[in-house]
Amino acid sequence: MIGGDGRHRVVIERVTPEIDGGRYPVKRTIGEAMVVEADVFTDGHDLLGVALLYRRNHDPQWMELPMVFLTNDRWQASFQAGDLGRYRYTVTGWVDHFQTWRRDFNKKIEAGQTVGMELLQGARLVEEASLRASKAEGKLLKELAAQLQSSKVPEEVRIEQALDKDLAAKMAKYPDRRFATIYEKELVVVVDREKARFSAWYEMFPRSCSDKGSHGTFGDCEARLPYIASMGFDVLYLPPIHPVGVTHRKGKNNAPTALPSDPGSPWGIGSADGGHKSIHPQLGTMKEFRQLSDKARSYGLEIALDLAFQCSPDHPYVKEHREWFKIRPDGTVQYAENPPKKYQDIYPLEFENDQWQALWQELKSVVLYWIEQDVRIFRVDNPHTKPFAFWEWLISEIQEEYPDVIFLAEAFTRPKLMYRLAKLGFSQSYTYFAWRSTKAEIVEYFTELTHSEVREYFRPHLWPNTPDILTEELQQGGRPAFMARFVLAATLGAGYGIYGPAFELCENRPREQGSEEYLNSEKYEIKQWEIGRADSLKEFIGLVNRIRRENSALHGNESLHFHSTDNEQLLCYSKSTPDESNVVLVVVNLSPHHTHSGWVQLDLDPLGLDPQHPYQVQDLLTNAYYRWEGPRNYIEINPHSTPAHIFRVHRRLRTEHDFDYYGEEAGH
Amino acid sequence: MIGGDGRHRVVIERVTPEIDGGRYPVKRTIGEAMVVEADVFTDGHDLLGVALLYRRNHDPQWMELPMVFLTNDRWQASFQAGDLGRYRYTVTGWVDHFQTWRRDFNKKIEAGQTVGMELLQGARLVEEASLRASKAEGKLLKELAAQLQSSKVPEEVRIEQALDKDLAAKMAKYPDRRFATIYEKELVVVVDREKARFSAWYEMFPRSCSDKGSHGTFGDCEARLPYIASMGFDVLYLPPIHPVGVTHRKGKNNAPTALPSDPGSPWGIGSADGGHKSIHPQLGTMKEFRQLSDKARSYGLEIALDLAFQCSPDHPYVKEHREWFKIRPDGTVQYAENPPKKYQDIYPLEFENDQWQALWQELKSVVLYWIEQDVRIFRVDNPHTKPFAFWEWLISEIQEEYPDVIFLAEAFTRPKLMYRLAKLGFSQSYTYFAWRSTKAEIVEYFTELTHSEVREYFRPHLWPNTPDILTEELQQGGRPAFMARFVLAATLGAGYGIYGPAFELCENRPREQGSEEYLNSEKYEIKQWEIGRADSLKEFIGLVNRIRRENSALHGNESLHFHSTDNEQLLCYSKSTPDESNVVLVVVNLSPHHTHSGWVQLDLDPLGLDPQHPYQVQDLLTNAYYRWEGPRNYIEINPHSTPAHIFRVHRRLRTEHDFDYYGEEAGH
Repeated sequence: MIGGDGRHRVVIERVTPEIDGGRYPVKRTIGEAMVVEADVFTDGHDLLGVALLYRRNHDPQWMELPMVFLTNDRWQASFQAGDLGRYRYTVTGWVDHFQTWRRDFNKKIEAGQTVGMELLQGARLVEEASLRASKAEGKLLKELAAQLQSSKVPEEVRIEQALDKDLAAKMAKYPDRRFATIYEKELVVVVDREKARFSAWYEMFPRSCSDKGSHGTFGDCEARLPYIASMGFDVLYLPPIHPVGVTHRKGKNNAPTALPSDPGSPWGIGSADGGHKSIHPQLGTMKEFRQLSDKARSYGLEIALDLAFQCSPDHPYVKEHREWFKIRPDGTVQYAENPPKKYQDIYPLEFENDQWQALWQELKSVVLYWIEQDVRIFRVDNPHTKPFAFWEWLISEIQEEYPDVIFLAEAFTRPKLMYRLAKLGFSQSYTYFAWRSTKAEIVEYFTELTHSEVREYFRPHLWPNTPDILTEELQQGGRPAFMARFVLAATLGAGYGIYGPAFELCENRPREQGSEEYLNSEKYEIKQWEIGRADSLKEFIGLVNRIRRENSALHGNESLHFHSTDNEQLLCYSKSTPDESNVVLVVVNLSPHHTHSGWVQLDLDPLGLDPQHPYQVQDLLTNAYYRWEGPRNYIEINPHSTPAHIFRVHRRLRTEHDFDYYGEEAGH
Repeated sequence: MIGGDGRHRVVIERVTPEIDGGRYPVKRTIGEAMVVEADVFTDGHDLLGVALLYRRNHDPQWMELPMVFLTNDRWQASFQAGDLGRYRYTVTGWVDHFQTWRRDFNKKIEAGQTVGMELLQGARLVEEASLRASKAEGKLLKELAAQLQSSKVPEEVRIEQALDKDLAAKMAKYPDRRFATIYEKELVVVVDREKARFSAWYEMFPRSCSDKGSHGTFGDCEARLPYIASMGFDVLYLPPIHPVGVTHRKGKNNAPTALPSDPGSPWGIGSADGGHKSIHPQLGTMKEFRQLSDKARSYGLEIALDLAFQCSPDHPYVKEHREWFKIRPDGTVQYAENPPKKYQDIYPLEFENDQWQALWQELKSVVLYWIEQDVRIFRVDNPHTKPFAFWEWLISEIQEEYPDVIFLAEAFTRPKLMYRLAKLGFSQSYTYFAWRSTKAEIVEYFTELTHSEVREYFRPHLWPNTPDILTEELQQGGRPAFMARFVLAATLGAGYGIYGPAFELCENRPREQGSEEYLNSEKYEIKQWEIGRADSLKEFIGLVNRIRRENSALHGNESLHFHSTDNEQLLCYSKSTPDESNVVLVVVNLSPHHTHSGWVQLDLDPLGLDPQHPYQVQDLLTNAYYRWEGPRNYIEINPHSTPAHIFRVHRRLRTEHDFDYYGEEAGH
């Protein structure tokens, strides 16, 4: 009739972080603090003991940390995960009868009341604890309990003993937890390696790496590594490297028919040469791929591959697994459509088919195949066009065995779909950054990403351009726009990437007005990039990436804080480390055309600054130093030189107050 | 290896209302709309069918309502509960292949593409639906499917048939729901009667109802009914009517020892005459109580009793169930304490005892006992000092059998405890209203109560005074303060109450300065109130209660909207019915001392007003009419006459535009 034991009086609720009632894990990287809070309280006036419980996913045993009372019935503790993979956490709380007794005992003493009976009550609690204690401490507690109720010991001595801090500490070790409440859910945190949070990606078409105009090879890519490394990137992302289909292959500029010389889109995967587990023969062999990968590592670059789960009409799956495709009434395979547009060179997989389980397993085997080739980072093409449940299954299956694998979701779709993909497992996610250009847009979007619950599971990855996205801003703003957008990407986002060499060469010609497609897009033809051009941004990029590496404030997003400016074209924000030992302040002129000046109104608190003290800001781009004081400071930026300041804030500027004699004189 | 069927592609999340991940029910009263929303989407571009499912708690069968697409992947539907008790609700969604096909088919037609293959695909979908349809409609659909793929029918005819709206409607009746997703939780709404939301309580000590100075009886209470009814109340709440303990009984003004003539506190429950199921002999018999209750109903008054689960030392439980109390080392029963204060006249029940189940059942039997005496409303004394789990069990057990029973939580404690009690079942809750006196305090608190998630489960009950609470404001502000606080309670809160006759007689003498206790508090002595006094607020109260009854805008809280004023002492707010047929605007002068004037800046939208159109406001307290236009209007209130306006807003003020000829001339 009555379910459970009604004597569990402690209530635990509003545990954070908790996503969708615990349905999804939150994310952290190794070494990041996992701060857990909860509302914990009980009926009446009894005091509580509260502990955070956590363990690796498969460990049977909880580890335990005491939670500290904050205010308003809220408690907090934090742990750091030492290993990759999943951890579980929850909260437990119990009524602490000894602590309660001690508080009340104290109040009675202070009020000068007699406490003979209370001493006996305390003794009883100590005696009970002795039975829960270690043998040695149990003996001690037992003796103490006897003392507390002994009429031979003077009462003032017993009072002192009862209130002894050591006794309180011992009693805290052995509370009566028979009626402890454990929060009804076990929550999960996925612990990834640092690159899942902090990384700079460089996207490059391997086939365009030859200097001779011919089809590039992995060997040519190797030759490019010093160039890429010199710009300071740490992930080299290659569009699909698989055999490219022939049937309905697209020509240059997405022409419906290809010339025999046209190489086709790398996303038209699969030919007589193989499918998702094969390499396009003109690029090289698997051995050469492994060699490129090893060489890249020696330059501090890790290779990321593309997972584009779709097929060209020539993909082996089409013959071997027709059941994985939608068949039209005439018996042909259904090609991709976005009516009235038709993509006859692409056959989407049909996930509602009866053999869906075999399909899921095959796709998993593709990922495992490349993991065996030592690939640990995957950029997933259009994940929002495959079932959500598939991704949740795939990512958790893979990470169960390989917790170092990172998945980046390339989903440019509606916000709830993007967030759902992140919740169910993607380590990082493309964002709307490319289309957020005004100050108001940037502030609103990045406040949502960094200061709402979203930040617990959605790790933003910022791309100012991609092979599909040449924004109007870049088209029209030219070089100053490329520089400003680069600074924004690299400092607003701990994770970001560029599609090069188009980016550093400021390639900005659209296929037609109003289009975000590149003219002569690399998706459909082999390019020869003049990477040595004098107007390349490669040195600027290298500098900004070095600033990123050297300033750990830029390694995360949660400290992002926007500061006011009195000019709509001047965007100002800061990031800092939790201990405020590194504070970076960025000001960007959003206009690629005109010099803008104005006053920034800094919030000194997130900068760790004292309003009474001057401070120094050092522009890490120019190495110029400025002495500032208080919140209001003047800024002027000419976009045609450098469209941004990236300041390091130095708090401890010496003044005469810092000299020893001054402090002495003033009596400090 | 793969759990579940991966072909369930629809995602359902962020269903509202949902409290703590579905752990607690939300609350509605009969006739209130239950609006349910959810984020529902799928991968890719397929269109969805989405339905709200709901049923009475024990019904096996769901009822179903189509949900309507709002925006940004959000869907909505609403139902009205027709019966008291618990309802369950959840959401289901499926990919609608026919709708999707029809949309794409349309686009292709518009683009002038050939659609021969598409007609065959459509025919296939219609044929499949025919197998799910009723016999008659199945036959029709089957014939249509044949038509659509018949080469004998001209294509333009088949296209027209395929796009026929009737076909779409029929197909919507028989979607393929094999892979429908059902939201993983069944959520619960508790449907109460209207009094749980909208009621005006009058608290009165029965023993003070005699006109002769002797101990009042239920008979004396009966004589008071016309008086109470004339003020327009609908609930008469009696403090405990049980036998009062003698041991350690408190004297007048809470004196530690009582004189033989002192009646003791009604909350010191239990004597040789019985406990919680007995009536104090001086009040009368059970028969007389039932008679009072019946008579009260004839005046539109329902009696609410006090549930104070604590005992005097003379309560029968103390002898019969020592196991339900805490025993001190000397074998005596532990009295209530709040160190250094001691309350030797009260023994709290010890809920951590081994026989807790028997205790719970006994307390439930107390409630059932009074339910059998036809009591359906209980005011629960200090529920936060008994285990939360107990209340959740008790209330759900009682309401399972008696869904018309209302529980009001008298918990003046920390916010999270108050909200928890509401979540786990209390129908209504006392609030901090008594201590919210400035404009900023009132706006902040009532915005939280009416415009956060709290409103789904916490029904505020506002008390300007209680036998324990005589606020500083009332002490110092006198009659104008009593009037202003009364208007605030009665119009800010659909549920409210006063402790009378102290309230209507403006009793404002505290026991001592800085205390909220009444001088010569009725808790410890029998009072004789001069209810006929000329300065009584009874008529004013009666008028405000009539205004409440006649204006359904005041029957709920969710429409509460605060409007700006340029004077800190002028508080302005409105309430309206969902259809805006009744709109009430209140302006209160918060100062009991001075006349205040200023400009209100009305938000016209929540008032349903057109900025282009003048309107009329009618002060329901004075029946004065004012013609206003636009948002800005002048107010002047002298607290020594009436410290508030309660306006009814009349939108359709006639102007020359309303005459027929005007519209004609202007060509409307």
